[in-house]
Amino acid sequence: MKNYIKKDEWCIIEKDFHPEYNRVSESLFSIGNGRMGQRGNFEEQYSGDSLQGNYVAGIYYPDKTRVGWWKNGYPEYFAKVLNAPNWIGIDVFVDNDPLDLAQCEVVNFKRVLNMKEGYLKRSFIAKTPGGKDVKVNTRRFLSIVDDDCGVIRFSITPLNFDGKITMIPYIDADVKNEDANYDEKFWDVLEKKAHEQEAYISAKTKKLHFHVCCGMKYEIFRNGHKSDFESEGTVKEKYVAGKTILDCRQGEQIDLVKYTAVLSSLNHKTEDLLEHTRGELEKILAKGYDKLLEEQAWAWKKKWEWSDIEIKGDVAAQQGIRFNIFQLNQTYTGEDARLNIGPKGFTGEKYGGSTYWDTEAYCLPFYLSSAPPEVSRNLLLYRYRHLEKAIENAEKLGFKNGAALYPMVTMNGEECHNEWEITFEEIHRNGAIAHAILDYVNYTGDKDYLIEYGMEVLIAISRFWSQRVNFSEAKQKYVMLGVTGPNEYENNVNNNWYTSKIACWTMQYTMEVIRFVKESNRTRFAEISSKIAFRETDETDRWQEIIDNMYFPKDQEKGIFLQQEGYLDKVIKPVTEIPESEIPINQYWSWDRILRSCYIKQADVLQGMYFFEQEYDEDTIRRNYDFYEPLTVHESSLSPCIHSILAARLRYHDKAYEFYLRTARLDLDDYNNDTSDGCHVTSMAGTWMSVVYGFGGMRIIEGKLHINPFIPGKWQKYDFKILFRGVLLRIDVEGKTVGVRNHSDKEISVFLYGKEQKIGGRASISAFIE
Amino acid sequence: MKNYIKKDEWCIIEKDFHPEYNRVSESLFSIGNGRMGQRGNFEEQYSGDSLQGNYVAGIYYPDKTRVGWWKNGYPEYFAKVLNAPNWIGIDVFVDNDPLDLAQCEVVNFKRVLNMKEGYLKRSFIAKTPGGKDVKVNTRRFLSIVDDDCGVIRFSITPLNFDGKITMIPYIDADVKNEDANYDEKFWDVLEKKAHEQEAYISAKTKKLHFHVCCGMKYEIFRNGHKSDFESEGTVKEKYVAGKTILDCRQGEQIDLVKYTAVLSSLNHKTEDLLEHTRGELEKILAKGYDKLLEEQAWAWKKKWEWSDIEIKGDVAAQQGIRFNIFQLNQTYTGEDARLNIGPKGFTGEKYGGSTYWDTEAYCLPFYLSSAPPEVSRNLLLYRYRHLEKAIENAEKLGFKNGAALYPMVTMNGEECHNEWEITFEEIHRNGAIAHAILDYVNYTGDKDYLIEYGMEVLIAISRFWSQRVNFSEAKQKYVMLGVTGPNEYENNVNNNWYTSKIACWTMQYTMEVIRFVKESNRTRFAEISSKIAFRETDETDRWQEIIDNMYFPKDQEKGIFLQQEGYLDKVIKPVTEIPESEIPINQYWSWDRILRSCYIKQADVLQGMYFFEQEYDEDTIRRNYDFYEPLTVHESSLSPCIHSILAARLRYHDKAYEFYLRTARLDLDDYNNDTSDGCHVTSMAGTWMSVVYGFGGMRIIEGKLHINPFIPGKWQKYDFKILFRGVLLRIDVEGKTVGVRNHSDKEISVFLYGKEQKIGGRASISAFIE
Repeated sequence: MKNYIKKDEWCIIEKDFHPEYNRVSESLFSIGNGRMGQRGNFEEQYSGDSLQGNYVAGIYYPDKTRVGWWKNGYPEYFAKVLNAPNWIGIDVFVDNDPLDLAQCEVVNFKRVLNMKEGYLKRSFIAKTPGGKDVKVNTRRFLSIVDDDCGVIRFSITPLNFDGKITMIPYIDADVKNEDANYDEKFWDVLEKKAHEQEAYISAKTKKLHFHVCCGMKYEIFRNGHKSDFESEGTVKEKYVAGKTILDCRQGEQIDLVKYTAVLSSLNHKTEDLLEHTRGELEKILAKGYDKLLEEQAWAWKKKWEWSDIEIKGDVAAQQGIRFNIFQLNQTYTGEDARLNIGPKGFTGEKYGGSTYWDTEAYCLPFYLSSAPPEVSRNLLLYRYRHLEKAIENAEKLGFKNGAALYPMVTMNGEECHNEWEITFEEIHRNGAIAHAILDYVNYTGDKDYLIEYGMEVLIAISRFWSQRVNFSEAKQKYVMLGVTGPNEYENNVNNNWYTSKIACWTMQYTMEVIRFVKESNRTRFAEISSKIAFRETDETDRWQEIIDNMYFPKDQEKGIFLQQEGYLDKVIKPVTEIPESEIPINQYWSWDRILRSCYIKQADVLQGMYFFEQEYDEDTIRRNYDFYEPLTVHESSLSPCIHSILAARLRYHDKAYEFYLRTARLDLDDYNNDTSDGCHVTSMAGTWMSVVYGFGGMRIIEGKLHINPFIPGKWQKYDFKILFRGVLLRIDVEGKTVGVRNHSDKEISVFLYGKEQKIGGRASISAFIE
Repeated sequence: MKNYIKKDEWCIIEKDFHPEYNRVSESLFSIGNGRMGQRGNFEEQYSGDSLQGNYVAGIYYPDKTRVGWWKNGYPEYFAKVLNAPNWIGIDVFVDNDPLDLAQCEVVNFKRVLNMKEGYLKRSFIAKTPGGKDVKVNTRRFLSIVDDDCGVIRFSITPLNFDGKITMIPYIDADVKNEDANYDEKFWDVLEKKAHEQEAYISAKTKKLHFHVCCGMKYEIFRNGHKSDFESEGTVKEKYVAGKTILDCRQGEQIDLVKYTAVLSSLNHKTEDLLEHTRGELEKILAKGYDKLLEEQAWAWKKKWEWSDIEIKGDVAAQQGIRFNIFQLNQTYTGEDARLNIGPKGFTGEKYGGSTYWDTEAYCLPFYLSSAPPEVSRNLLLYRYRHLEKAIENAEKLGFKNGAALYPMVTMNGEECHNEWEITFEEIHRNGAIAHAILDYVNYTGDKDYLIEYGMEVLIAISRFWSQRVNFSEAKQKYVMLGVTGPNEYENNVNNNWYTSKIACWTMQYTMEVIRFVKESNRTRFAEISSKIAFRETDETDRWQEIIDNMYFPKDQEKGIFLQQEGYLDKVIKPVTEIPESEIPINQYWSWDRILRSCYIKQADVLQGMYFFEQEYDEDTIRRNYDFYEPLTVHESSLSPCIHSILAARLRYHDKAYEFYLRTARLDLDDYNNDTSDGCHVTSMAGTWMSVVYGFGGMRIIEGKLHINPFIPGKWQKYDFKILFRGVLLRIDVEGKTVGVRNHSDKEISVFLYGKEQKIGGRASISAFIE
């Protein structure tokens, strides 16, 4: 655990330069606007350790699968969001010395991510090897208003000399992904231009032929006044730059403002790319730096109005939760249904920026609660648009008649993952995609979604489940053989309770939705039935037959569901008996030992208790929680949040808080020693859930909002917002009371501690904490 | 299935050149002498499709592991027997046209592998693009007398012209393995010399630094008379050659005889290598080609005297079985306990030439029966010498106190395989290594082996088993969780019957051996006990406790052992219900579908019935066979032989013959379409077993030889030899009678159809077939 980030309510602050943690800082100081993301790399050259990263959403590379032993059905490639041409670069020379923090003495270094207004700034004094002192201030942001654009203000002041400052703003397309399977570079450069004060590169990915055009213009200011300057364009193989040599006096501040636009063929015709890039640049240049910055602050203010969580009495917690919310809002804005949320967002290469079930199981509630319904609807439409590929994916595995298996990892709907025990067997993901439809409709009330899209997806998933089970003559029950549950520390097990549960639930829900669609829009029902050759009676009869006769492993005596058949054949010992020196077990134990052990990576039976809480009485939840939690090592960052929520539900408040703490500052404190690879963006949504679902006890049950908050002992106060069915509510929990304020004009009904209450427009209610 | 190889009792013959099958032919026409092996590549340049391969036993490369997703415990490398410097090369030019069968018109092509005398010859007439006709005859062999040496006679006769023939014998160290994980080349050349009429290359492997020195000398004959000639040496980066340009008259036969020696640092000091290579070359040059060839024929005659199987009435079967025996004798001669038998022998790169459990489970009986006991003893010593590494291997997986897990795939005792379900879980291999000790002692009567080596290995393996099981509170039995049985179409199952059986058997046998060693050599027992910190009572008590309380899955009603717990939850349908178009399932079904299915890759429960046949009555064997065989797809070449033996045991004679046929000509007919990768050498031993154990009904039971033959309906007669406790027996099965002839002077007792009979020296007995 590192502790070099300063605590602050609104900012992430690194004081003094920590080159040893530079990759961690680069992840933490990432900026993004949903369309692009940029790690906290320096603008100027840096010869120290660094992971360069700039990612354009939706632009990926199908990197040829690397595998030890090929298995039938493996995908040909793993889609990776590419490291895109570097737009931030500004090489700087002080007289002839390069400004390189790995070569200079660095004083008063400070790097600040201002989350309130959405920018990154940096200041320091550098003493070059030649003894020249310069003061540097930089600020950059990716605009969420003009979301193809990024802006940098780079200020430098000679402190102890008169001399030449050379500044070389550039765009470099000679980039690669560190995790490329075969060490290939992915970009071909098509066109490059470097005129005075502007430059462009058009590049194309080697496969799939995505085009990206990156352009820059720049201005020079002396002591704050715009200044004429001469610039010499340079064009190299995959690089364009402008070089400006400025004679400076001691104490004179030189600012270079670099305006950049990065446009892609995802949103523009290839032949228009260069022209549109130029247009964007002209637009932002006309606005100018100050206005752009002001618009950015305003736009972020709006985001915070809907999504902020305020905590009093615990700055570390406050900073942690805001960092999480900030990253989630940087990663996904919901404006484009072709995009989704990679586990690392735009903060690193790991997991290829591809989509996992994290989106449906962990991220969706955040966007449902803190953004208009269109945002989460786009997350659902993403999967709807991949339905055809999910059907093809299932066909590759031998399934028929329009059964769909959504991929474990995907960019465009095709499966990318290549471990058989995950790719082919961790099929519970299919259930999470069905469950997201319930979540969305339950939350937004948008039942039209079921008619238009939802039912079709649900039928395809139910078809999969009904083919994936088989009837066991031995058990006289339906069984689900050869699966991997959410607990990936078990592989290829039979009758994983959670998977079988979500399978039956999907079929049940699908039948409900079918009834609804038939009742409300018979024409559309007929249309879809015909399109997908749905034999309603036959198919639903089989689903019902399976639901009625599914085998669920249980232990009567303990009163628990069994994670899988045979789980109790293991040696059952709590995690506390594992020697400290062997934790995390995934770093110290061989894989087979982990598999044989009783230890659980992340919520599995308890994931089911969380999803289907309404179906179980408190005692059942408690018995399962009490049995499984002590066996859980929480070696997935997605584990603690579910346990936190359930612990809160069971009024294990200290436990709930303890779990919350395990991920609240996961990246800020580099808890798992892996933030250098990127931030755990999808897990951040889980932390949000710990607060809102856990401490706040928020639920939507049959379309009604329930709130049951408690307050962690360490906190004086916290509040959170919920945007529910067009109404923005703010829940304040302070001392012994809870207040719910309706920030809209519409009356709304809310269950506070189970008691239904109406809250008029702009009105509030309050209660004592129960 | 291909059918281009001509049937012949003693030869493998390709008539007319089949470039489309060239890689298959290169595998089939491989030659080897236990120390080296060479694929049937052409001496002269060939621009068509080819897999060049020359392998020096024991010289390998630790090729960096390639894996999609790393798991703790995976090995760092996969050991691969290297493609070694090419010693056969003789480039030929006819005037200026290269002799290249891909560029010439080829007439009267014939390639013959003479198995009786151990050489490969080739003849053809080639018409060059320039219209020059030449007649070519080549013959080559790897001497089993001078086993560092290979000799080639390359004859060429101009048919329609007077002109120049250029011959360039060379050694080329610029070779690589096609299956290199990262496309690296593995050799550095240290020294190279090319004088008149001789040349040398010394090369070193990039890791591990094995040294190999390859030298050549050559002679020229004109019309059979040794001739003076001039030769110009050439040295390139990794290549040495001599170039001889000869003026020839039409009809004049030019012979180049190339003598080659390949010596390695495995057997010589590095600094002596060149000198010793030169010495070897001088020795064989002095013997001369004709004498070398004669010695080769004589040595092979000796091998055949002990190992031949003669079949009358079925040339295809005769050719098939002799090809198998020939390859086994080419691959392993048993003179060096550091060597072993790779699944492809010296006939291809696949499986890296490394050692699998194939050696103990399939190959050992062949060498026990057809060679002096030292040969099989060396196979056992190979594992004894790897004991320390096997203990380290187990330690990496968390086992303690001298428990040993022998690797799945190895060269030097370290594990090379990197699929978790195999590497960590296919642990039954450990049992096969224990079982080989029983086999060896039972067969040879060499009980001293137990005292000197066997007990130590057995204790280490038993220690592994006793730690690998755990006590299930739920079952009140010991269970073995997370294993993969011999049937690799199931992964990570619980309580695989075969694995649990061989585990208990090992512990039982170890206790017997301990008793024997204590009785016969108390000093040695004390010595080993102390060396390995053996706590006899504690440890054997635990073993006995496990043996007494092991959980074995069974189905009472069906009267069968269950392959693993839960096997009967699957949909049980015979293989005959799989559509023909989906067979082999490993080519058509995704891996998860294979795993979920009931289909069995190779004998699993039945492997146990085979190993432990004496423990079960015929009805039990029959019930298990009748249940499992119809569910078995036999997609391992090691499967049919076990089924053939059991079928014969159950007097399912037609079935036994049918299974025999499935592998008897596996490579000659390229049955599985993969002989291009190399021949299935270890499976060949299985075919031998089908005849001797299956048709011949041979068993060694408590040190006594049993014979119970039947004769397949299609055959008139067959015979086989058994070298048993110093006595060479020949069993003739013809028509309705069986004859057993004792070819030694010593009396021996044999059970023929269960009736014990003594056979005096040089005497015979006979009986009617029962």
